[in-house]
Amino acid sequence: MKYTFIKLDPAWRRLEAHVRLDHKREFAAACADFADGHLLRAFSTVGTRGDTDLMLLTQARNLGRIHELHVVLAQSGIMKWASVPYSYLAMTKPSEYSDESRLEVRPAHAKYLFVYPFVKTRAWYALDAKERWRIMQEHIKLGREYPDIDLNTSYSFGLDDQEFVVAFETDDPASFLDLVQRLRTTESSLYTLRDTPTFTCISASVERALTALDGEPIAAEVV
Amino acid sequence: MKYTFIKLDPAWRRLEAHVRLDHKREFAAACADFADGHLLRAFSTVGTRGDTDLMLLTQARNLGRIHELHVVLAQSGIMKWASVPYSYLAMTKPSEYSDESRLEVRPAHAKYLFVYPFVKTRAWYALDAKERWRIMQEHIKLGREYPDIDLNTSYSFGLDDQEFVVAFETDDPASFLDLVQRLRTTESSLYTLRDTPTFTCISASVERALTALDGEPIAAEVV
Amino acid sequence: MKYTFIKLDPAWRRLEAHVRLDHKREFAAACADFADGHLLRAFSTVGTRGDTDLMLLTQARNLGRIHELHVVLAQSGIMKWASVPYSYLAMTKPSEYSDESRLEVRPAHAKYLFVYPFVKTRAWYALDAKERWRIMQEHIKLGREYPDIDLNTSYSFGLDDQEFVVAFETDDPASFLDLVQRLRTTESSLYTLRDTPTFTCISASVERALTALDGEPIAAEVV
Amino acid sequence: MKYTFIKLDPAWRRLEAHVRLDHKREFAAACADFADGHLLRAFSTVGTRGDTDLMLLTQARNLGRIHELHVVLAQSGIMKWASVPYSYLAMTKPSEYSDESRLEVRPAHAKYLFVYPFVKTRAWYALDAKERWRIMQEHIKLGREYPDIDLNTSYSFGLDDQEFVVAFETDDPASFLDLVQRLRTTESSLYTLRDTPTFTCISASVERALTALDGEPIAAEVV
Amino acid sequence: MKYTFIKLDPAWRRLEAHVRLDHKREFAAACADFADGHLLRAFSTVGTRGDTDLMLLTQARNLGRIHELHVVLAQSGIMKWASVPYSYLAMTKPSEYSDESRLEVRPAHAKYLFVYPFVKTRAWYALDAKERWRIMQEHIKLGREYPDIDLNTSYSFGLDDQEFVVAFETDDPASFLDLVQRLRTTESSLYTLRDTPTFTCISASVERALTALDGEPIAAEVV
Repeated sequence: MKYTFIKLDPAWRRLEAHVRLDHKREFAAACADFADGHLLRAFSTVGTRGDTDLMLLTQARNLGRIHELHVVLAQSGIMKWASVPYSYLAMTKPSEYSDESRLEVRPAHAKYLFVYPFVKTRAWYALDAKERWRIMQEHIKLGREYPDIDLNTSYSFGLDDQEFVVAFETDDPASFLDLVQRLRTTESSLYTLRDTPTFTCISASVERALTALDGEPIAAEVV
Repeated sequence: MKYTFIKLDPAWRRLEAHVRLDHKREFAAACADFADGHLLRAFSTVGTRGDTDLMLLTQARNLGRIHELHVVLAQSGIMKWASVPYSYLAMTKPSEYSDESRLEVRPAHAKYLFVYPFVKTRAWYALDAKERWRIMQEHIKLGREYPDIDLNTSYSFGLDDQEFVVAFETDDPASFLDLVQRLRTTESSLYTLRDTPTFTCISASVERALTALDGEPIAAEVV
Repeated sequence: MKYTFIKLDPAWRRLEAHVRLDHKREFAAACADFADGHLLRAFSTVGTRGDTDLMLLTQARNLGRIHELHVVLAQSGIMKWASVPYSYLAMTKPSEYSDESRLEVRPAHAKYLFVYPFVKTRAWYALDAKERWRIMQEHIKLGREYPDIDLNTSYSFGLDDQEFVVAFETDDPASFLDLVQRLRTTESSLYTLRDTPTFTCISASVERALTALDGEPIAAEVV
Repeated sequence: MKYTFIKLDPAWRRLEAHVRLDHKREFAAACADFADGHLLRAFSTVGTRGDTDLMLLTQARNLGRIHELHVVLAQSGIMKWASVPYSYLAMTKPSEYSDESRLEVRPAHAKYLFVYPFVKTRAWYALDAKERWRIMQEHIKLGREYPDIDLNTSYSFGLDDQEFVVAFETDDPASFLDLVQRLRTTESSLYTLRDTPTFTCISASVERALTALDGEPIAAEVV
Repeated sequence: MKYTFIKLDPAWRRLEAHVRLDHKREFAAACADFADGHLLRAFSTVGTRGDTDLMLLTQARNLGRIHELHVVLAQSGIMKWASVPYSYLAMTKPSEYSDESRLEVRPAHAKYLFVYPFVKTRAWYALDAKERWRIMQEHIKLGREYPDIDLNTSYSFGLDDQEFVVAFETDDPASFLDLVQRLRTTESSLYTLRDTPTFTCISASVERALTALDGEPIAAEVV
């Protein structure tokens, strides 16, 4: 499971329109190839963040396949003018605290995905397993009051800088804001070491997410 | 609600005057289009900060509209030579501690806007609601001693890296400085985890804020 | 009151000498204009810091005048090749702890200015005013043992990231080093949250501070 | 022992294919020269990190030889377009806690290497040696439950920013993730000050790691 | 006393060999001029760090002379393509804890210099002077077990971001590593707030340190 955040060099937008169009087609082609057999979702962060423009969420059983996608993407014109300011590698696994967790991210079904890397304090891990289980139930119970907000937690221990990557999906930002504010007063919140950066990601097709980069229309046959 | 801080690449000021003028017109046009139906305010930070030149404060009921504005802005010459070093996404909602809070930012009425992202300690959220309410009353009471300073608090839980975006508006920086120094000695201040960066923003029309970037006159028909 | 630290792009020194001379003249002219009626002092940090070359200290009763100076400076060739890695905005006001404090920075009278932004812990502000007064007296008394070291403290609460900007002025760095080391053992030192970055600034005329950037002689008529 | 993480400037991928091929050949030649008599292993981080593309792990008895390799690498076209965002210098030495530790990194034998710099809290060093030994036994015992995961710890005290560089080698990321998550609940984990950044490195020949940079085939005679 | 760490822009290595040779000669000439009457030592960090290539250690009784050297260096071709990622300004003074300390850095006599900026916790300074003296004796005694490791401590209070700059000199990195690891268990170690970045610097003539930048031979007459 991989969250790849991409930021275009502003100089890219100074290239001629037809060059940019080629660049976007190359990028979209690499995505289409991977999406044939794997989950790939695109999101725009134009207007929600200043340090990233586009996010790709990809999933494969084999890390080699994720690597391969990024090798191919790097050959696209887009990546010849872009950096990757944030990158989160993670794996799915069953939760110790709930059996409602999903191992697969569903194909796009909501307007927004809210993503953040997550690290708990070491004091959390010093609690015994039952105590952690008890504390998590309050957290989970509060989440259930918001049935329209979907949660996907993946695991990064030893693989990347964070312990978890948390992704909430919903059509309703105000309701999600409300949930997160209420979660602050739960006991489990005292054991959070880091939950930033926090990304508001707007669900889009790959093509629309690319078009959002420069407002140029992408040719119909690609869409 | 979106605070977008923009920093021009110094190389932009090496372009010819007529090119820069076009760039500013494109940017102003995108703003004018959005401002027709939404709140949009511009501020200059030239001389108050070293890492940002210009701030746009925008508000829309629909996040999609904020996204759209930034897609269009990105096509202006200005954004082809600029970065966004700070970006704060937030929503308005009623305060739990006061019913004087405003859900709408008023159109420009004061010379300065002082803005900072705000995060409270987790110890704050572990207090019970009554205790938090009690502590906030001292804070609010002190604020009321400065009736010429207007406060707008918006909420970012789960949407962006901060919990709140706080914006004070006044004509009198010395009086605001005095208020903030006095707030340090209130009990609520002990629960502040982060209140920086702190921005002194000078209220301006979009055109004047753009002119401040390079001192070139903007054509009369745009203003 | 404004401390503006400027770093030249190394590429600027690759420009031809006459171009650089023009750039320096433009910058010096903007300074001269402001200095006619306001305090403006220049300092070189070449050799004392790696991240900044030049510092301008300016003072005006009106923030608009500081803004205007920076708009004009931005049009000089120097600022078309420079960044502002540090920027501190502050105001003067009477001290609660001493009535010896000065509201005006004196025109240049010593060789070195030592500057740092300063933030106290929130525990400091939780002390009652008398206790804070008592603790500050030890600090002030120690300072009085160094009569050749001049202190200027300005206030940034709510205006910028720091709470204070502290500036010491002296001809004798060894004696200042000694004072700061001794201040570490005072009670007030326990309440320091941040006192870096710390800048050793070498007093100079604007022209000499500019000449230090590239070692090219500045034309006599400008000096 | 040296871990050198390399990030290519995106502009490099805009060069013509034959130029990039020459650059890769120069880099590979420098590696081949060093590998004749010393351990040198290459890893790709394309797709696992956003801030680095390639990692070289090298070992020599003499630091001068490591220095010399990097001087020669710097002359390759690759390094004329690259930066080194992470660099870890370390030495091997016997462990105080286990006599199973290896002084030599084995030549490549697994698909993945997981690397992180490691710093313990000062509280750890304040424990007496027996207590530290006791605590480490739990850590070591848990590691033994994963016999297919190979650990190499090297020492950086005084040589570089971290205290240790820890490298785990395995074919099975899920099993490693499980081990690291379980290690969080051990007593020794309470004494971790820093264990990031954490790198997932994909084992490769130098040539394949270079090919992953731009997807261009490297000529057969070099491989 | 000044430690200046220099990083070349990778683009510099893309210049033609004769241009680079001129750049190195200009830099070496500035160094030679200063070294006539002052201590100047050069070190290479190629292969030991990723963020710096070259370090100059200079000493003069007068800060003005250090400033002047850096003005002249800035005119060399090297500095037109370089940045100074780390810069430490300090002064020598007698130690309160030992009378073995040296006020002068000796001319080069060992292969490696290990350098780091150092800040102690405020709790250290709250101890009374006798207690600090007692704690330092254990530290000093351990150091004496390594007679081949030479220590030079200089003072930066109020002059720069750190309190001390610590430099150890030895031919034997393994023995130094051993000393630093053992020092972690001393009481004084509990009062360390910051001791990074830590630099392994390879002693070299100015010419050899410059040659290490691009592997081009420097003309015999300069050496």
